Amino acid sequence: MSQLSPTLSLACDLIARDSTTPADAGCQQLMGERLARLGFRLEPMRFGEVDNLWARRGSEGPVLCFAGHTDVVPSGPLERWDNPPFEPKIIDGMLHGRGAADMKGSLAAMLVAVERFVEANPDHRGSIAFLITSDEEGPALDGTVRVVETLRQRGEGIDWCIVGEPSSTDRLGDVVKNGRRGSLNGRLLVRGKQGHVAYPQLARNPIHLAAPALAELAAEQWDNGNAFFPPTSFQISNIHSGTGVTNVIPGELEALINFRFSTESTVEGLQARVHQLLDRRGLDYQVDWTVSGLPFLTEPGALLDAVAAAILEITGEPTTPSTSGGTSDGRFIATLGTQVVELGPRNATIHQVNECISASDLDGLTDIYQRTLEKLLC
Amino acid sequence: MSQLSPTLSLACDLIARDSTTPADAGCQQLMGERLARLGFRLEPMRFGEVDNLWARRGSEGPVLCFAGHTDVVPSGPLERWDNPPFEPKIIDGMLHGRGAADMKGSLAAMLVAVERFVEANPDHRGSIAFLITSDEEGPALDGTVRVVETLRQRGEGIDWCIVGEPSSTDRLGDVVKNGRRGSLNGRLLVRGKQGHVAYPQLARNPIHLAAPALAELAAEQWDNGNAFFPPTSFQISNIHSGTGVTNVIPGELEALINFRFSTESTVEGLQARVHQLLDRRGLDYQVDWTVSGLPFLTEPGALLDAVAAAILEITGEPTTPSTSGGTSDGRFIATLGTQVVELGPRNATIHQVNECISASDLDGLTDIYQRTLEKLLC
Repeated sequence: MSQLSPTLSLACDLIARDSTTPADAGCQQLMGERLARLGFRLEPMRFGEVDNLWARRGSEGPVLCFAGHTDVVPSGPLERWDNPPFEPKIIDGMLHGRGAADMKGSLAAMLVAVERFVEANPDHRGSIAFLITSDEEGPALDGTVRVVETLRQRGEGIDWCIVGEPSSTDRLGDVVKNGRRGSLNGRLLVRGKQGHVAYPQLARNPIHLAAPALAELAAEQWDNGNAFFPPTSFQISNIHSGTGVTNVIPGELEALINFRFSTESTVEGLQARVHQLLDRRGLDYQVDWTVSGLPFLTEPGALLDAVAAAILEITGEPTTPSTSGGTSDGRFIATLGTQVVELGPRNATIHQVNECISASDLDGLTDIYQRTLEKLLC
Repeated sequence: MSQLSPTLSLACDLIARDSTTPADAGCQQLMGERLARLGFRLEPMRFGEVDNLWARRGSEGPVLCFAGHTDVVPSGPLERWDNPPFEPKIIDGMLHGRGAADMKGSLAAMLVAVERFVEANPDHRGSIAFLITSDEEGPALDGTVRVVETLRQRGEGIDWCIVGEPSSTDRLGDVVKNGRRGSLNGRLLVRGKQGHVAYPQLARNPIHLAAPALAELAAEQWDNGNAFFPPTSFQISNIHSGTGVTNVIPGELEALINFRFSTESTVEGLQARVHQLLDRRGLDYQVDWTVSGLPFLTEPGALLDAVAAAILEITGEPTTPSTSGGTSDGRFIATLGTQVVELGPRNATIHQVNECISASDLDGLTDIYQRTLEKLLC
């Protein structure tokens, strides 16, 4: 593979390691060896089954951190891959393999960009850091959140963070994520009274009781969003009730609900409105709530300016900040008061079979990361 | 068990045979041998796995038929029975065992009543028949419905039929069933479009789409019933949608719906109204309909008069005709143009653990059946 660029070559080395979540499969060791050669101090942090790596070059501020994950989602049915998922291959200019876009390509681009920057600027100001986990695609309990907690406890801050999540949609760099909505999950249990369908007067059908309430929840306008966030959205992702037979009225109904909420709503406010609506309908119910992530927002400032300028210089096109889409580990890092953006390749094939990424985009992403380093730390 | 009445003794012999549906476990042979001694012509009809018995004494009309089933529902957890389900035992005046009330007690009462009646009236007018199946608690596809089809094809009619289902509620004979509502099942599939909860604009959530329609169906008044039937009732017995994970909007929703309908509604009419309502909401859906039984009604006449008078004479109390409750094999027999009533013991414990029946009620039921025979065939 001598004809490959340094970024593509490293991306292939990483993809060839089957690091299906929560495995790291030696990716962090590979990255750590190259970072150590650049003068980074390595601090592996293993929590439970999860390998994490905190690495830093320099002891002063400001700290610019590259964040990402080495774990990948399961390949799915092998026979549906045109090329084996852990045997990286470039076909028609596209690098194929599980993790090519999410996000071993980004990891390779970050590392090569830092190598080039440090070679040219060995005495750069501030510090460069890497926060790498192998638990982003899994439960995300022993990964970035635990590393961040460790940093918080010892008072180590991060000023700026670039997460390598695939943020681009139609062309490299067209979108950077400068925040994310919060995510609030609820398990709703509506209690009725089981009975025979022939004697409905002796039973209380929880499906009949819940249906109008669920219809009302689905139709509700929770907020109108703001300049940075779309309106809060509500989805019922699962609903189950019934014994399987046709002549029994079930005793209870379970539904899983999810809010993706803007900074215009709060966890407590959304919970109160759900309870109010269910109470008004006189339902016998309970909701077990889980906060998956609070919303965060990186307003225009040094980091967003640097990233936007780098994208414009390298691609010739402007970028658009966006807060739409799913959660990422950026939500944990933002709790340190860090300015966080997500900037990575196009996301069209992530989590799918035949995941792939444009080879030239990966080299372009390397250049963008390097230009951002130059703007912030020179 | 020499101290037991003939009915109780026979009931015990039947209960001791574990005829969990669709097994007969020799019950029909036991009954057949006694019927043959009375001069009945036996016609065993085995369809698939199911034993059925058609037996008739006499060749003239009118034909009075006793109908019932030897199969029982599963015992459920044995450790929850105070007394083993297939070891009949009288405790405090109650006969305990699976099938005691549904409906081996009734079978014993019918047989002993007929034995007494034939002994006293060997030259009774008309014919006495038994239609016994072992597929009433199961799918009910190879049982009574097939026997009735055989009779229909050869032009053999039944004028009056007493089904031994446990119709009584608070005291023996307080209720006889003189008809049953129809039962119409539907499997409703509502199609949406699967997607990620973070991008609801790219998906169509079938739970959100279906909820208002289901609420409307549940609130609908389908008819007002009539002098013989309560209003048609509608129940959603099962609802399922969702992939199990919290971040995916499902692609479709399935619900099982059931109508118990009076003679004021028709299958076609109910189907049309459901489709109309779903169409009006613009749903992408299909419904697979199954008619479990058409409604039937036995209006006041010779059979109902005879049964009511017999109950009054034996118990000293009047009876109330009713069409409420679940379906029974009576719905198949009624298609022959037969007057059908269901008359049996109290139903408080049927299908439960510790099923039991009052021993004296069983003897009273025997007397009621015998008086009915006398009124109709003397």
